[in-house]
Amino acid sequence: MIASVAWVEEYDRGSPVRAGEIIAIGSELLLGGRLDTNSLFLTEQLASVGVEVRFKSVVGDVEADIAAAIRTAARRAKVMVLTGGLGPTRDDCTRQAVARVTGRPLRRQPEAMESMRQRLAEWGRTPTGPQLRQALIPSGAEVLDNPVGSAPGFCLSWKGCLVVALPGVPAEAERTFAGSVAPKLSSGSAGQARLQRRVLHTFGLPESDVERRLTGVVRAGSDVRLGLLASPLGVTVSLTAWEGRLNTARTQGVSDLARLARTVRVRLGRFVYAEGTDTMEEVVGRHLAARRVTLAVAESCTGGLIGHRLTQVAGSSGYLDRVAVCYSDRAKVDLLGIPEALIRRHGAVSAEVAAAMAHGIRSRSQAGVGLSVTGIAGPTGGTAQKPVGLVYVGLNAPAFRNAEAKADDGSLTREFRFHGDRQAIKLRASQAALEMLRQWLVTTGSRGR
Amino acid sequence: MIASVAWVEEYDRGSPVRAGEIIAIGSELLLGGRLDTNSLFLTEQLASVGVEVRFKSVVGDVEADIAAAIRTAARRAKVMVLTGGLGPTRDDCTRQAVARVTGRPLRRQPEAMESMRQRLAEWGRTPTGPQLRQALIPSGAEVLDNPVGSAPGFCLSWKGCLVVALPGVPAEAERTFAGSVAPKLSSGSAGQARLQRRVLHTFGLPESDVERRLTGVVRAGSDVRLGLLASPLGVTVSLTAWEGRLNTARTQGVSDLARLARTVRVRLGRFVYAEGTDTMEEVVGRHLAARRVTLAVAESCTGGLIGHRLTQVAGSSGYLDRVAVCYSDRAKVDLLGIPEALIRRHGAVSAEVAAAMAHGIRSRSQAGVGLSVTGIAGPTGGTAQKPVGLVYVGLNAPAFRNAEAKADDGSLTREFRFHGDRQAIKLRASQAALEMLRQWLVTTGSRGR
Repeated sequence: MIASVAWVEEYDRGSPVRAGEIIAIGSELLLGGRLDTNSLFLTEQLASVGVEVRFKSVVGDVEADIAAAIRTAARRAKVMVLTGGLGPTRDDCTRQAVARVTGRPLRRQPEAMESMRQRLAEWGRTPTGPQLRQALIPSGAEVLDNPVGSAPGFCLSWKGCLVVALPGVPAEAERTFAGSVAPKLSSGSAGQARLQRRVLHTFGLPESDVERRLTGVVRAGSDVRLGLLASPLGVTVSLTAWEGRLNTARTQGVSDLARLARTVRVRLGRFVYAEGTDTMEEVVGRHLAARRVTLAVAESCTGGLIGHRLTQVAGSSGYLDRVAVCYSDRAKVDLLGIPEALIRRHGAVSAEVAAAMAHGIRSRSQAGVGLSVTGIAGPTGGTAQKPVGLVYVGLNAPAFRNAEAKADDGSLTREFRFHGDRQAIKLRASQAALEMLRQWLVTTGSRGR
Repeated sequence: MIASVAWVEEYDRGSPVRAGEIIAIGSELLLGGRLDTNSLFLTEQLASVGVEVRFKSVVGDVEADIAAAIRTAARRAKVMVLTGGLGPTRDDCTRQAVARVTGRPLRRQPEAMESMRQRLAEWGRTPTGPQLRQALIPSGAEVLDNPVGSAPGFCLSWKGCLVVALPGVPAEAERTFAGSVAPKLSSGSAGQARLQRRVLHTFGLPESDVERRLTGVVRAGSDVRLGLLASPLGVTVSLTAWEGRLNTARTQGVSDLARLARTVRVRLGRFVYAEGTDTMEEVVGRHLAARRVTLAVAESCTGGLIGHRLTQVAGSSGYLDRVAVCYSDRAKVDLLGIPEALIRRHGAVSAEVAAAMAHGIRSRSQAGVGLSVTGIAGPTGGTAQKPVGLVYVGLNAPAFRNAEAKADDGSLTREFRFHGDRQAIKLRASQAALEMLRQWLVTTGSRGR
């Protein structure tokens, strides 16, 4: 116990950052194969209002376990966010656990009742018996309106800690947090440190190369933290510092963050495809929209993933004309007009066919640019000459007609050898194709249609 | 504190299940957008040797925070698994935290040194200065060989709790656990309960309807736990019980699990589309392969997601012929032969166009069945008559020609009104389309081509 108290002191030592803790509730987050994704955006959002999440935990739908997690968190946090367990089923017992631990009995609150009735009325329904349980809130707690679901959240102050309970459904947690919790935390954050963070996304360099290129960018003893994170979509570089927490004796501070980010950008050059929360498909979409270039895609091994990614972006119908997923050779002949002889001569997975696919989809659609992918996603279908992971990307646009054209039909192609399982190879191939399109848009695109 | 002790007693009450706890270590798991995926397989693996994980937590690379998490876990767990923070960089401080908390100073252990040298030698390298730190192990701890990485794990017994430290890289954590930890836990698990689990996936019923249909299936006081999990892909029902933990006074036990699963199946009927780890795309794929029916898909608002999902399954090239993503009206005319007048008359989002899309993709591809989706994924593009979330699915197959055909061209169509954001509507629409195909394959498909 003495150790525990000592630790708390160490934790609060001179920091203007409020300690935060997230508790995700749901047995499906233990045995059930589901991960707590809410904590990702919550950690980011809390940092932006001066709350540093140092512990996250997951417990099942067991009242005693939830209570234990709340007690542990209350000993060290100023802000505690619970997610999940607010639904209408008997499993859901977050409200009971909070009531038990804090000694605030559950009451049916008119405000919660109203919020729920209103939401259900929008969907043309009335509350069922089980749903009525959702209006039970610990006495003295404040109801947090859930603008996209029937279960309202709530918050209360206990032992100097703000306890926030949010619904577990991600969209409901996000909207409830943004609408009711962030403003509350933000108004109390004067003089608090806030997290400053710059994130740069790269594709095409192995993690060890990124690390080597960034050697010495952040000096030892600096308050700025440099992090690298590798995935099939590339390597993400992050620079993080808590503004307001700086020790003046240290050599680099938050004011250096923008400068450091510029240095990182210069050292990584054209491999940086996006910053912050931007995704590759958003960046490509913005370039296409700004240049008024329409796109048509011919996919083989990626199976529709490129189309799926592009259409995750609202407004993509403004520049995406069509996607042809040609999983059979016959579909390549029918939809793209590729000569059967070409496939017979070079194989469906070849630079020649990738070039013809990009040309075929563009000329048939009359889109500004044609993009194609053909490859072997595995786990079967590989040979010694053409192993699993071999992928060709093709790009066809009028600007290639003269200078840059590599194939007869004016397409540019590139060969890749990816590793990983089927899912990883599909992801890497889709990213490589979108990156090739981005490079073209950045350098040549303005000369396109 | 009294409450905490009472809780521990409740926790251990007459159970042959050992309490387990997982602590994932790494600052990238807090701010960095990465999730602790190791806990998924660890929770499953531990359950199979009689250890029930009731708490998971995540802490950054901060020695004091790791120490705090270890102390909390030791108060309630018999088995504690730490992952991460064993690498060669200065950030990595799991070994220091364990040494500090348990009072066992770090020593360079010859066995750890040997394990590391051997692994590096296989890669043609010798240990660097920082890597030598990886041979530091708390005194008295047992070294756990890491067959795929340079950082060995270790385990020790402390206050009646087995403390296991594994590397954070998923492949290294899995291999170290399987090779050194599972056998140890398994040999001590005679008489221990083991987890039994049945999972059923449904689509098309709201969670509250699933719950109502299952009322009374699991009696109060039973050791079997019934869990429901809603997502855009439907509602998943799980039945879980710890074999060996049964109290004979209780009325239902593990032996009932298979019978209960059958009851659930009967009550949910045709809404059950898969069991266990199967996905909708795998189930549909197996039906198509078994019936030798080929498939062609015409997508609009789902943007390629149906193709992407179908092609996540290895071997899908055996039954998937093509997917046409027609994001523009012109693409619908070109690729599917839909009369422009039809689109003008009914709008691109209509039952008539969905029917024509399914017919068009099937007749042009000569596939056995044609599947189509058209809808409004939002957030813009909705009107009072055709709101965001309105989706039509079409299915065209020869078997519809006579009895079931709803539209002139022999297509069956269905209208849906989904809610949620763009991503959720795309997911729900793709699932609704695959489910309509599955229903056809189950009931009529054998009469198809």
